[in-house]
Amino acid sequence: MFDFVKRGGLAGVEAGETAICSVGHEANNLTYRGYTIQDLVKFASYEEVAYLLIYGKLPTAKILNEFKQELIKYQSLPPQICNILEQLPATSSPMDVLRTSCSALGNIRPESATNTQYAIATALIPFLVSSLFYWHYFTTSGKKINTVTQQSTIAGHILALLTMQTPNETMRQALNASLILYAEHEFNASTFAARVCVATGADFYGPITAAIATLSGPLHGGANEEAMHLIEKYATPAAAIEGVREMLREKKLIMGFGHRVYKTSDPRTEFIKKIAADVNTERGKTLYAVANAIETEVWDTKKLFPNLDFYSALAYDYLGFPKEMFTPLFVFARVAGWSAHIIEQRANNKLIRPNAAYIGPGVQKFIPLDERKD
Amino acid sequence: MFDFVKRGGLAGVEAGETAICSVGHEANNLTYRGYTIQDLVKFASYEEVAYLLIYGKLPTAKILNEFKQELIKYQSLPPQICNILEQLPATSSPMDVLRTSCSALGNIRPESATNTQYAIATALIPFLVSSLFYWHYFTTSGKKINTVTQQSTIAGHILALLTMQTPNETMRQALNASLILYAEHEFNASTFAARVCVATGADFYGPITAAIATLSGPLHGGANEEAMHLIEKYATPAAAIEGVREMLREKKLIMGFGHRVYKTSDPRTEFIKKIAADVNTERGKTLYAVANAIETEVWDTKKLFPNLDFYSALAYDYLGFPKEMFTPLFVFARVAGWSAHIIEQRANNKLIRPNAAYIGPGVQKFIPLDERKD
Repeated sequence: MFDFVKRGGLAGVEAGETAICSVGHEANNLTYRGYTIQDLVKFASYEEVAYLLIYGKLPTAKILNEFKQELIKYQSLPPQICNILEQLPATSSPMDVLRTSCSALGNIRPESATNTQYAIATALIPFLVSSLFYWHYFTTSGKKINTVTQQSTIAGHILALLTMQTPNETMRQALNASLILYAEHEFNASTFAARVCVATGADFYGPITAAIATLSGPLHGGANEEAMHLIEKYATPAAAIEGVREMLREKKLIMGFGHRVYKTSDPRTEFIKKIAADVNTERGKTLYAVANAIETEVWDTKKLFPNLDFYSALAYDYLGFPKEMFTPLFVFARVAGWSAHIIEQRANNKLIRPNAAYIGPGVQKFIPLDERKD
Repeated sequence: MFDFVKRGGLAGVEAGETAICSVGHEANNLTYRGYTIQDLVKFASYEEVAYLLIYGKLPTAKILNEFKQELIKYQSLPPQICNILEQLPATSSPMDVLRTSCSALGNIRPESATNTQYAIATALIPFLVSSLFYWHYFTTSGKKINTVTQQSTIAGHILALLTMQTPNETMRQALNASLILYAEHEFNASTFAARVCVATGADFYGPITAAIATLSGPLHGGANEEAMHLIEKYATPAAAIEGVREMLREKKLIMGFGHRVYKTSDPRTEFIKKIAADVNTERGKTLYAVANAIETEVWDTKKLFPNLDFYSALAYDYLGFPKEMFTPLFVFARVAGWSAHIIEQRANNKLIRPNAAYIGPGVQKFIPLDERKD
C-alpha cells in the first residue's frame, strides 16, 4: 500500500463502487447512468438529467412535469432562512452563504418519514438558487426579493433571479447545457466528501453541506473563478502568451487545465467552448481570443488540455454572471449528482474510514508543565 | 485494487500520512504527538492537549496561560450569530445547530491574514460551546444568555453554561479527562472528511463544518447517544442481558462496541469507565450495572469490547448532560484534532480524489421524452 501514500490523495485508488457515472472509460468519455454526455447535452433538459441522476432512470413526460412542479414549489424560502441570510454580510463568499443556508434548512425542514431523501434532493436545487439571490439582493440593495419566479426550469429560475426579467431563451438554453455538463462527475472531491459524511448515518443536509464546503476550494469548484481571474488579466492574446509563459517558467499552477482522471482531453470542453464561442460582445470576443491563446500556450508547453472549468468561466461571463457566482452555479448543477451519490451510499452503506501512515515521533516521556523549556 | 473495494469503506487502506496521532501501534495504544493517552489523561489539561495537537508541541506555562486567555476571549458570540441561533427551532438536532453556527461564523469572521488558521482553531473551541448553550437556553426558555463565563478551562466553560453555576471541581476534572480522550483519533470519518474538504483549498470553516456534519451520524459521533438509548431501556442487568441476546440473535448492531482500527480493546475505555464508575446516584448505579451486564454479554457472545463511546454515555449522564448533548461534547473535544489535521493537510497538500469502480450500465441509446414508457 505504500505506493498509494507516495502518490497521495488516493489517486488511482478505487474507494468504492458506483452505478451513477463513468468517467474516462470507453473512449475517454463521460456517461450518466449509461447515457453519454453528448446525447444528454444535445437532447435533454437539466431537469431530466437531475431526475435521471436522483431516481436512476429517465422520466416520462408526465413524471417530468410533476418533478418540475415540485421544483417550482421549492423556489420559496422559509422565513427563518430569509432572516438568517440577512445576517450574512455583503463581504461573505457566496459559497459560504450557500453552505450556511443549506445547513440551516436542515434545522427547519429536517429529514423525516414525510420529508424523504427524494423530497430533499428535489427541494435543494431551487432552494440553493433562491438562497443565493435573496442574500445577494438584500446585501447589495437592501431589497427583500420574492424568490418565486414560477420558471419551470432551473436555468430559467437562475436567470430570472439574476436579471429580474423573463429570461432570454438563447441564454437559458446555454445555461441549461452548462448545468448538464456540471451535474455529476463520479468520486470528485466534493462528492467523495458527501459519501464519507453520509456513511456515518448523517442526515441528508449534512453531506450536501460538506460537499458545498469542499467544492468551494480553488482546486475544485473554485477553478472556474480562478480561470476568469487569469483570463481577465490580459488585454491581448500576445500579452496572455507572455504572461502564461512566465507563470509556467515559475511553475505556477494554471487553473482550468488537466484532470486527475481524464488523461487526453475533457469530453465536456467542446460543448462549453461552443457556448463561450457564441459570444458577440466586444468584451466577450477579447476574452475568448485571450482564452484561446492561453489554451494553445499551455498545450504547446505542458501538453495539458482545458477542462470544463476553463471555458465555463467565459460562458458564465457571457451570460452575465459576476465571477463570484461561477462556483455557486457549479453547486446548482452538481447538487443533483451529490444527492444521487448520497442515496446510493445509503443503499449499500459501509463506514468510510481509512488508515493513516504514521510519520510522527515515537513514544515520548511526558514533561510536567513547570519543567518545560521554550 | 479490487479487494479494497470488496472490503469497502477504505478499511485498511492508508489514505495519507500523519504525524499527529498513532492508533493501534505499539501495544495497541493511542498517542497524540508521541505522548501516550495514559500520560495525557493523567497529567495534562484539555487546553494543553489542544495546544499540543494544534501547534505540535506542549506549551510552556507562559504560553499555556496566553492560550487560555485567547480561549476566554472567544467565549462571546458575535450578535449576528445570536440572531441566527434564534432562528433555529427547539426541535433542531444540536449537531445541526453546531454545523450551522460554525458555517455562519465563516461569513462573519472569515479566514484572512489577520484571522489566521491558528486563531480560528483556538476560537472555535469556546465558540462552539457558547453557540450550543445560547441556542439551548433561547429555545427552551426564551432567555438570551451571556455566554462569557470567564472560566479558564473548556470543561469549566461547558459546565458553567450547563448549570449556570460555578462548576464543581470533581465534575470539571472528569469532563476534562473525557475531552482529552475524545480530542483526536487519526483518520476517523469526520477528520478524513475535513481533510478531503480542505485539500481543495477550502477556507478553515469549511472542513470543520464538514467534520461536524460527518460526526453527527450514529456510526460515528452519534454512537454515545445511541449507547445511552440502549442502556436506559433496561431496568435491571438481567433484563439487559435478555434484551441484548435478542438483539444479537437478530443481528442488530450494538452501538459503542468494537472498532475499525483497534482489534483487542480500546485504550481509552478504562479511563472513561472509571469516571462512569465513580457515580454515586441511584440512577447512575443502576445504569452502570446495566452497562456492565451489556459489556459482559457482548464480549461473551461476539468477542467485541466496549469502545470510548459506550461508557462515555454514562459519564455524561452522570455529569448532568441530556442525551442530545453527548455528540456535541464529542465536537467540543475533537475540534482540536480536526484543526490539527487541517493545518497538517495544508502544509503538504494534495487533492484527495479517489476513483470509483463502475458497476452501472454500459452505454445506452438516448430515448426522446415522448417515446418513454412507464
